[in-house]
Amino acid sequence: MKSYLSKMGQRTGEPPISWLMQAALARPKLISLAAGFTDNPSLPVAETRAVLNQILRSPKTGQTALQYGITAGDPELRRLTAAHLRQLDFRAVISFSSSSLVPKPKSRTRTKDEDEKTYSPTRLLITSGSQQLLYMTAESLCDEGDIVLVEDPTYFVYLSILQSRGLRARGVHLERDGLDLAHLEKILASLKRSGELRRVKMFYLVSYFQNPTGVTTSLGKKRGLLKLLEKFERAAGHPIYLLEDAAYRELRFDPVAAVYDRRTSDEMANIRRSQTAATSYGERSALAVPGAAERVIYAGTFTKPFATGARVGYGALPEPVFSAVKHIKGNHDFGTANLLQQLFARALASGAHEKQVARLQKRYAHKARVMKLAIERYFPPAVEWWEPSGGLYFWARLPRNVPTGVKSKVFQTALKNDVLYVPGELCYADDSTRHKPNHEMRISFGNASENNIREGIQRLGKVLWTLV
Amino acid sequence: MKSYLSKMGQRTGEPPISWLMQAALARPKLISLAAGFTDNPSLPVAETRAVLNQILRSPKTGQTALQYGITAGDPELRRLTAAHLRQLDFRAVISFSSSSLVPKPKSRTRTKDEDEKTYSPTRLLITSGSQQLLYMTAESLCDEGDIVLVEDPTYFVYLSILQSRGLRARGVHLERDGLDLAHLEKILASLKRSGELRRVKMFYLVSYFQNPTGVTTSLGKKRGLLKLLEKFERAAGHPIYLLEDAAYRELRFDPVAAVYDRRTSDEMANIRRSQTAATSYGERSALAVPGAAERVIYAGTFTKPFATGARVGYGALPEPVFSAVKHIKGNHDFGTANLLQQLFARALASGAHEKQVARLQKRYAHKARVMKLAIERYFPPAVEWWEPSGGLYFWARLPRNVPTGVKSKVFQTALKNDVLYVPGELCYADDSTRHKPNHEMRISFGNASENNIREGIQRLGKVLWTLV
Repeated sequence: MKSYLSKMGQRTGEPPISWLMQAALARPKLISLAAGFTDNPSLPVAETRAVLNQILRSPKTGQTALQYGITAGDPELRRLTAAHLRQLDFRAVISFSSSSLVPKPKSRTRTKDEDEKTYSPTRLLITSGSQQLLYMTAESLCDEGDIVLVEDPTYFVYLSILQSRGLRARGVHLERDGLDLAHLEKILASLKRSGELRRVKMFYLVSYFQNPTGVTTSLGKKRGLLKLLEKFERAAGHPIYLLEDAAYRELRFDPVAAVYDRRTSDEMANIRRSQTAATSYGERSALAVPGAAERVIYAGTFTKPFATGARVGYGALPEPVFSAVKHIKGNHDFGTANLLQQLFARALASGAHEKQVARLQKRYAHKARVMKLAIERYFPPAVEWWEPSGGLYFWARLPRNVPTGVKSKVFQTALKNDVLYVPGELCYADDSTRHKPNHEMRISFGNASENNIREGIQRLGKVLWTLV
Repeated sequence: MKSYLSKMGQRTGEPPISWLMQAALARPKLISLAAGFTDNPSLPVAETRAVLNQILRSPKTGQTALQYGITAGDPELRRLTAAHLRQLDFRAVISFSSSSLVPKPKSRTRTKDEDEKTYSPTRLLITSGSQQLLYMTAESLCDEGDIVLVEDPTYFVYLSILQSRGLRARGVHLERDGLDLAHLEKILASLKRSGELRRVKMFYLVSYFQNPTGVTTSLGKKRGLLKLLEKFERAAGHPIYLLEDAAYRELRFDPVAAVYDRRTSDEMANIRRSQTAATSYGERSALAVPGAAERVIYAGTFTKPFATGARVGYGALPEPVFSAVKHIKGNHDFGTANLLQQLFARALASGAHEKQVARLQKRYAHKARVMKLAIERYFPPAVEWWEPSGGLYFWARLPRNVPTGVKSKVFQTALKNDVLYVPGELCYADDSTRHKPNHEMRISFGNASENNIREGIQRLGKVLWTLV
C-alpha cells in the first residue's frame, strides 16, 4: 500500500510518544509525568515581550528581524553564542571520576590559540532547535547501514532519526556517573573483529542530566571516551566523531533551592556562600578537552533554558562537518527564522537569558525536590530510582521481572488510574546484541504542577505497591 | 579528504547563490538585483509588534506561545490556514489557456464533500517555511536515483535539494502561459520506452509568478498536467504526484498600482471598480481540479506575503504522504516554533495578514513598473524580456551566443560596474538530454529601492549595449 513511498518514507512510523500524548488527551483527568514539556508558569512571557518590543520598536532593527538572514545564522547571535559557550566551559569546574578506566588529566593544557579556534563564531551554526542539528549531523556523516554508538538508554527521538534513516545503533551501558567505558571498549573491539568498525561514524552522547536517566557523564569520562574513539580511528579508516548533546546543560539545579526544605536559613546562606559562580556552571563540555575540538560536534539549545516555543539551537562543529551541515541546512530552510534569532541575540546581550536560566535552576530544583519527597513516601522499596541534579527526569527501575511497556499491567493500570510515564524500553536502541530492558520508567517533573507531581507519584506508587 | 562524509554530505556543495551573496558583500556600492529578499520598507514591523504584544500580554496565551506544540502544527493555525486556502481557491477566477493541448473544463464540478475533504485542516501541516515542506516531500517520496520532473528553468534551491539527495531531474519547457504540455508528454513517453517511468515520483511546479521566470501556469494547463501524470501512472506502477509550490501566489500585483503612472485618476477609478474581489485572487490551485486532491501536494507560505524573518509555511497533502512527512518532521524538529505559529494564527484571524498582502500587492506592482520602465529605456532591443504580473522577478533573454554565467564577460563586466543578477543557467537542472541554456538572467525588484532599481537597470543596460 505504501510501497511507493521512499525507503525513508516507509521506515518512518508514528513515534511511540505520539501514542502516549493521544492517551493523555483522551483522559482529561490524567496527570502526565511523561511529556518532556517545560514548566508553564516560569515561561518568560513578560521578558520575551519586552525584548520583542525593543526589536520591533525601531524600523531598522524591526526590518532586520523580519527579513531573511543567512544560512549559518545571524552574525551577532553566532558571536554571542560562541562567547556564551566559552563562558560555560571556562567558568565550569573540572571533576574527575574515580574509575580506574578514566585517564588522569594530562599535564598538557589548552593553549590560547586552541581556545580561540574552538570557540570561534565561525564554527557556530544556528539551527531550529538542537534537534535539527542532530538530524543534519546524521545526514552529513551517515549512509544507510552505518552504525552510531549511543548510550543505553538514550533520547528516544534520536533513535527515531536513526531508524528513519536506516542507521544501526549499538548501545553502551550507562553507570551512575556516565558511560561505562569498559563496555564501550569491548564493543569497539568486537566491531573491529567483525570488520564493521568502518561503519561506525559517531558516538551520540547526551552529556548533561541525560534524557531519560538524568545521568551526567563526567568530564573525565568524556576524556576517556574521546581517547577510545581516537584509538579505534585508525582501524575505522576515518574520524569517529563525538556528538555531544548538551540540551539540558543549563538546567542544573540551584544547590540552595534543591535542599531548601531541610535547612535553616543560616545553613542556606552558608551553602549559598560556598557556591562560587563557577560551580553553578557544572562540568566542562568535551570541547574543553585539549586537542578534541576537531572530533567534537557540540549541540546546544536556547529552547529549553529559555522558552520552548521559540526554537533556536546551535552547534559548534569542526570542518568538514560544519560546511556539510551548513549546505544541507541551505536545502532544509536556508536559515532559522531571523525574528527568533534576534530575540535570543538580545536576550543574551541584555542578561535576560542568564536571569531566566537562574530562575529555572531554582524552579526545577524545587520541583525535583517535590518529586523526590513524593517518591520516597509513595514508592515501594523494591523500586530503585535515580535522583537527578539537573534536567527534567527521574529514572526508576522495577525488579527485572516486572515489565513497564505500554502493554504491561503496570502501564495499563497506571493509565486507568490517570497517571502516565514513559516506558523505559522506548529509550533503548534496537540492538540485537543485547536483551532490551523493559522494566524501567522515565518520570518527568518538567510540566506537571507541584500538586500534580505529588498526586501523580502517589497514584503511581499505589500501582507499584500492588504490582511490584 | 571529505570521503568520510556521507554520500549526501559529499554531494552537497556550496550553493552557487552563496558566491553571489559574497560578491555583493565585497562591493559596498554594488546594487544587487540578484537576491530573492523582499522589500524592506514594507515589512510589517508595527503590525507584528502589535500582534506579538496581544499574544504576550496575557500569561495564558503567552505561555501557550512559548511552550512546545505538536508536530503537525497548532490546531487553530491549521484551521485558519485551511480556510484561507479554500478562500483563495473559491474566490479565484478560472481561466483557460487557448492552447489546443489543454483539455476544456469538464462538466463535472466538485462536490461539497470533495471540497470539505480537500480543504480539511487534517490534511494541513505547518512547516518552517515552505522550503522545509519541499525538502521533506522529497525525503518521503524519493530514493536515490529517482526522477523528479521540473520546469526548465526552475527554482534553484529546489535543484540543490535534488542534487544533494542524489535525485535526477528532467526539465520540461516553459512557455509564456506555463508548462509546455506537449513536451511533457514527449518526455513521459520516452521515459516509458526506456523503462525509467517507475523512477518518476513527482512533478515540481512553481505555479504562480514562477521563480525565476515570473510565468504563471494557467489552471487549464495544471488540469492538463494532472491528466498527463494520471495517464502515465499505470505504466509507472505508482502515483506520480504534482508538488505545487505556490510561494508567490499572494504576491499578485494590484492592477491599479501596476498602471497608475499612465492613467488618469478617472481611468484608475474605473479599473478599480471593474476589479471584483475575485480577480485579485487570481488562478485556482491544482487542489481545485475535481478529483485531483489525492495527487496534489500543495506548498504554501506565510513568509513571503507577510514577513520573511518569521518563517512559517504549510502544506496540504494526501495520505500516505501526509503521515510520512509528519513523522519525518517529528525527527527534524517535532514542530515549528509555536511563537511564530501563534503570530500567524492571530494575523490571519485579525485580518492583519490580508491587509499586509494588499499592501505588498500595491508595493510590488509599483516596483515592477519602475523596473519595466527602466528596462524599456535602458536595455538594447536584442534583449527579450518577460514582464511578470506578480512575484519578484523579471526574466531576460540575451541572444543565444551571449553567455551570462558567472565567468561570462556580461556577468564580470556587470560586477565591475556594481550590478548583480542571477545567471539563468543556475536555474536549469542537470539534464543530459538537452543543452543547458546559458544566455538568460533573473532580475529581481524585490529588495532594491526604487532608485537602485533604476540605477541598477541603467548600469546593466550599459553593459548589455556594449556586449550584446
